[in-house]
Amino acid sequence: MNHTIIFQPSGRRGLVPEDTTILDAARRLGVGIEAVCGEQLVCGKCRVKIMEGSFPKEGITSSMAHLSGLDEKEIKVLKRKDSDENLRLACSTRIKGDVLVFVPEASRTGKQVVSKAAGKIRVSLKPAVRKFYVELPHPSLDDPLGDFERLEQALEEAHGLKKLRIDFRALQRLPDVLRRSDWKVTVTVWQKAEIIRVEAGKVETNIGLAVDIGTTTCAGYLTDLNTGEVIATESMMNPQVRYGEDVMSRITYCMLNEETGLRELQQTIIEGLNAMAKQASHKAGFTPEDISEMTLVGNTAMHHILLGINPEHMGVAPFTPALHQSVDIKADRFGIHILPAGNIHVLPIEAGFVGADNVGCLIADVPHKRKEITLLVDIGTNGELVLGNRDKLISCSCATGPALEGAQIEFGMRAAPGAIERVKIDPETKEPAYKVIGSNRWSDGEANMQAKGICGSAIIDVIAEMFRAGILRKNGQINMECDSKRVRKGEKGVAEYVLAWRHETSIDQDIVVNQKDVRAIQLAKGALYSGCLIMMRRLGLTQFDRLAVAGAFGSHIDKVAAMIIGMFPDCDLKKVKYIGNAAGDGARIALLNVDKRKEANEIARKVEYVELALEEDFNDRFGEAMQFPHMFDPFPHLAGILPPEVLNIEQHV
Amino acid sequence: MNHTIIFQPSGRRGLVPEDTTILDAARRLGVGIEAVCGEQLVCGKCRVKIMEGSFPKEGITSSMAHLSGLDEKEIKVLKRKDSDENLRLACSTRIKGDVLVFVPEASRTGKQVVSKAAGKIRVSLKPAVRKFYVELPHPSLDDPLGDFERLEQALEEAHGLKKLRIDFRALQRLPDVLRRSDWKVTVTVWQKAEIIRVEAGKVETNIGLAVDIGTTTCAGYLTDLNTGEVIATESMMNPQVRYGEDVMSRITYCMLNEETGLRELQQTIIEGLNAMAKQASHKAGFTPEDISEMTLVGNTAMHHILLGINPEHMGVAPFTPALHQSVDIKADRFGIHILPAGNIHVLPIEAGFVGADNVGCLIADVPHKRKEITLLVDIGTNGELVLGNRDKLISCSCATGPALEGAQIEFGMRAAPGAIERVKIDPETKEPAYKVIGSNRWSDGEANMQAKGICGSAIIDVIAEMFRAGILRKNGQINMECDSKRVRKGEKGVAEYVLAWRHETSIDQDIVVNQKDVRAIQLAKGALYSGCLIMMRRLGLTQFDRLAVAGAFGSHIDKVAAMIIGMFPDCDLKKVKYIGNAAGDGARIALLNVDKRKEANEIARKVEYVELALEEDFNDRFGEAMQFPHMFDPFPHLAGILPPEVLNIEQHV
Repeated sequence: MNHTIIFQPSGRRGLVPEDTTILDAARRLGVGIEAVCGEQLVCGKCRVKIMEGSFPKEGITSSMAHLSGLDEKEIKVLKRKDSDENLRLACSTRIKGDVLVFVPEASRTGKQVVSKAAGKIRVSLKPAVRKFYVELPHPSLDDPLGDFERLEQALEEAHGLKKLRIDFRALQRLPDVLRRSDWKVTVTVWQKAEIIRVEAGKVETNIGLAVDIGTTTCAGYLTDLNTGEVIATESMMNPQVRYGEDVMSRITYCMLNEETGLRELQQTIIEGLNAMAKQASHKAGFTPEDISEMTLVGNTAMHHILLGINPEHMGVAPFTPALHQSVDIKADRFGIHILPAGNIHVLPIEAGFVGADNVGCLIADVPHKRKEITLLVDIGTNGELVLGNRDKLISCSCATGPALEGAQIEFGMRAAPGAIERVKIDPETKEPAYKVIGSNRWSDGEANMQAKGICGSAIIDVIAEMFRAGILRKNGQINMECDSKRVRKGEKGVAEYVLAWRHETSIDQDIVVNQKDVRAIQLAKGALYSGCLIMMRRLGLTQFDRLAVAGAFGSHIDKVAAMIIGMFPDCDLKKVKYIGNAAGDGARIALLNVDKRKEANEIARKVEYVELALEEDFNDRFGEAMQFPHMFDPFPHLAGILPPEVLNIEQHV
Repeated sequence: MNHTIIFQPSGRRGLVPEDTTILDAARRLGVGIEAVCGEQLVCGKCRVKIMEGSFPKEGITSSMAHLSGLDEKEIKVLKRKDSDENLRLACSTRIKGDVLVFVPEASRTGKQVVSKAAGKIRVSLKPAVRKFYVELPHPSLDDPLGDFERLEQALEEAHGLKKLRIDFRALQRLPDVLRRSDWKVTVTVWQKAEIIRVEAGKVETNIGLAVDIGTTTCAGYLTDLNTGEVIATESMMNPQVRYGEDVMSRITYCMLNEETGLRELQQTIIEGLNAMAKQASHKAGFTPEDISEMTLVGNTAMHHILLGINPEHMGVAPFTPALHQSVDIKADRFGIHILPAGNIHVLPIEAGFVGADNVGCLIADVPHKRKEITLLVDIGTNGELVLGNRDKLISCSCATGPALEGAQIEFGMRAAPGAIERVKIDPETKEPAYKVIGSNRWSDGEANMQAKGICGSAIIDVIAEMFRAGILRKNGQINMECDSKRVRKGEKGVAEYVLAWRHETSIDQDIVVNQKDVRAIQLAKGALYSGCLIMMRRLGLTQFDRLAVAGAFGSHIDKVAAMIIGMFPDCDLKKVKYIGNAAGDGARIALLNVDKRKEANEIARKVEYVELALEEDFNDRFGEAMQFPHMFDPFPHLAGILPPEVLNIEQHV
């Protein structure tokens, strides 16, 4: 039995089978509803308002109702925030009749502001895929050698290529192409070993696509393999976002939907990659078939899901990945629509929590070739740290959780229009000023800024500013003694600071930062900081020479704000370098140079992984690092910005 | 617009779009209609009788008709034999309205008697695919090495396997299988290089499938790779037969249907192979996924079509194939449903007309390792000859045409029930006796034998017997001076010999052998004989030590009859060996021993191909070889069977 569902305000409508959840119906109809926790009934982000259609409650029995009833868990999640009795969680409400559903703005997925532009990279050109033009002697009755062997001989004579194989898809076209082109052809050769394409006449175009699959954002760089130049950049949301925003909720989705979950997620990213290949190639005037190779980086979960490998075992101790080394797979076996005989090269991964994205950072930033000690920090949903130099490198993964990216935060959201991205607080008045993505002006507490929530960079900002303004104590407690109407007790008596008044927002509520949000950030930064400390101790270091901050998110963080909250140990801010989307740079480098692939495999195995949880004093170090900026460590480089006593430094009289 | 078509006597019916040919409609509805010439309007085998439904003729205009009109070519082909004005050629008649069509028995495809049983082969076991049982140390937080690398280490320690790759399909299952089996697994390794399957626990079953793709018949041998034993044999008609019986008509079909023809033919054989793999594996109690590898032989056209390579260029001078060397393709890329990561190994081919089937014969009969001179004759639609020994081997292809297999013969048919398979003629009375497939008794000229036509072995028999009985002269002419009512002038005054009277047949006609049939056999045997002569001359030989006759067809030929008509030069009949389906044996040998694959590639390139058409005196030698048994060559070994004067030998007084 099918029922009609209509979504407002988009107006999308469709027929769905009985017992479909509202969230699944939304996915089918292309309506974006936030699903942060992966249908775990935890985040409550997917709440929708039932405008028409009843569900079982007083006076309405199950058989009369248009929707399934509420269970205790849903009631608990809903009660946390709302008393509107027509609100339901889209993930757990099943359709039993015709319904009209309103998706509140707070529950809508926005189009993320993607900023993974291609940076400048330096790499010598030695791509895996090369093209060779060759002219063949015509066959005759005296010389009836087969087409492939004839081509093989000509390639050896003209280009010294030996013992080549030919992919059967190239072979299928070989006889016709040779004869059509009067035996003058251009051959695409992969790894000096295999012919993957034969084209008539002389063809110089040789392009590849490097892709960084982020948990949230994917960036593709269509690259000219003859020049190394990026000829088209294509960014998109990772379409898996609709199955959950963070890695764990996607892994959970795979586990809960044993038969189909993994396949569904894999198919979703493959379709995304196909769309990306199509758009990027069209933008540059080519077809996807012209793309001879694709290189990919991503964290271990993205890596496993892309390859169709159950990621669940990486989520439990001892966190072993399915494999470390890089993988080459024929595009056609994988459903990727580039040159069918072309390869997908997936970079190696270091450990269960240190993925191919990190390997990409390494071959881009090359700490393993430097004399100086580098601390490389890649902040995503997990924080990945690498410390060392050409003598030794160690890595670890910090369970920062998604808080730094705005999840687990009451009003947290992705960097999308409507998100508050910068915050200043006047230490005297405790009044804030903020900027919203999509607008250039600072708030004044009066104008409607159409604010919708707080994204990652602003969360760092607001916590740092609250601390600097004395609204937060060193231990993270909100100081209720502050003389400001913005500091108050909210629902259930939880302390909070009002960042935007209801009239400034588009969601018809005050946007606040509460004690729980602060704790979430403290946990995240504590994990990062204690990771840094343990790594430094492991190498016997008290300081480092460079702090390389990678990641699109990283490049939006205010250096000073990050140091104020103590995301990393004290250092000269001049030593802090934003290296941009180094993971994506690594994918481009691997596309352009096969030696770098070898280097990637070597370095992936050489980096020593430190399992933080195995350190005996991990909990103590973690606890100390929860404080702003740290319980004991001195932060001399913040002198003048914060009072000496919170910086654990001697006061200069 | 769709029309209903009903086929009689099968009663199959269905809706087909306007302008579908009757032949295509039959294919769709699974009705077998002979299509020997590949829709070339030459053979006339596909004639059907229109029972209901009109076509444009006197009194019926095109717009009223249910079928397309006759063109001159169709009229010409039809007139050759029939005057029934409701007969049409199924291949060229298009459906324009509802029709009822009767398929006469002579036009029906019968189920061929397939006899490609697996012979005994001797080969040491060294298969490409091997299984290895291994127990892995459990991972721990101290040892969180990835699953694949862990497996790699264990395989190196336990079995000395090094530098293995893993196919991504095996990788996908690796983490789950390892954990489910308590880290005890059996790994399937291809060519000591790549892991293609991981199974829980200890598994010994290791099977492969060797297939001989004949133009008419395919034979599959499911083989235990641990013992070399054939555990199931599966035979089938090559399903491409419905696109034309001989190689040239299939190539023509590809050429005429440029966009889809090749793909259609390829898909047809792939589906056939899938059915074969399924049946064979089920027969032995396995699933098709248990088949770890498939080896394939076939002539060059079957080879190219299977691989999806346009075969048309091989059909025109200088007859170059797309490639010689063997090919390995992942089953899943090819749509073959065995182990998806398993390989399809297609054996190499020698030249445009000497295919992988011949290479199969070579590695089975190993003339290249013998001291004696072997003449290897593989009679199919083409005759393929190899001559020589361990010092040198040469090969050639003789355009025997399909006459020896019963095509191009007025009453020729495949070896199917109803086919006459053995013939004797009394030299005195000129009365024949024959046997029909499906019955054990000899004909007596009276009983209805349900005879339908003459298959290949009987054609050799009847021509030999006609010659022996004086019905044929040495030059092949039918001797009209014979005193027998069976020797007569037939239609259009063509001389013929009545083999079966109308009342003995199921087709309501006399079955005759006419002058044109004799000429067709003379051409075929002349091609074969002159090929032998030219090859022997090339090697400076006047005789050979062994005559190895390969092929399922070859093994049905009567040795004496073959020598009487002069299919090959005179020799001691004891030297003639039937080596059975040597091509299929070769496929099995390649499945069981990788060194034999190497040998196959080497021998394929080492055999020197002789292009007979390039020999200056080819036409003269061919002309001489047209006579029975030969114009000049003596046939001492037939002394006593034929009179000395026709054997070109001195009479012993």
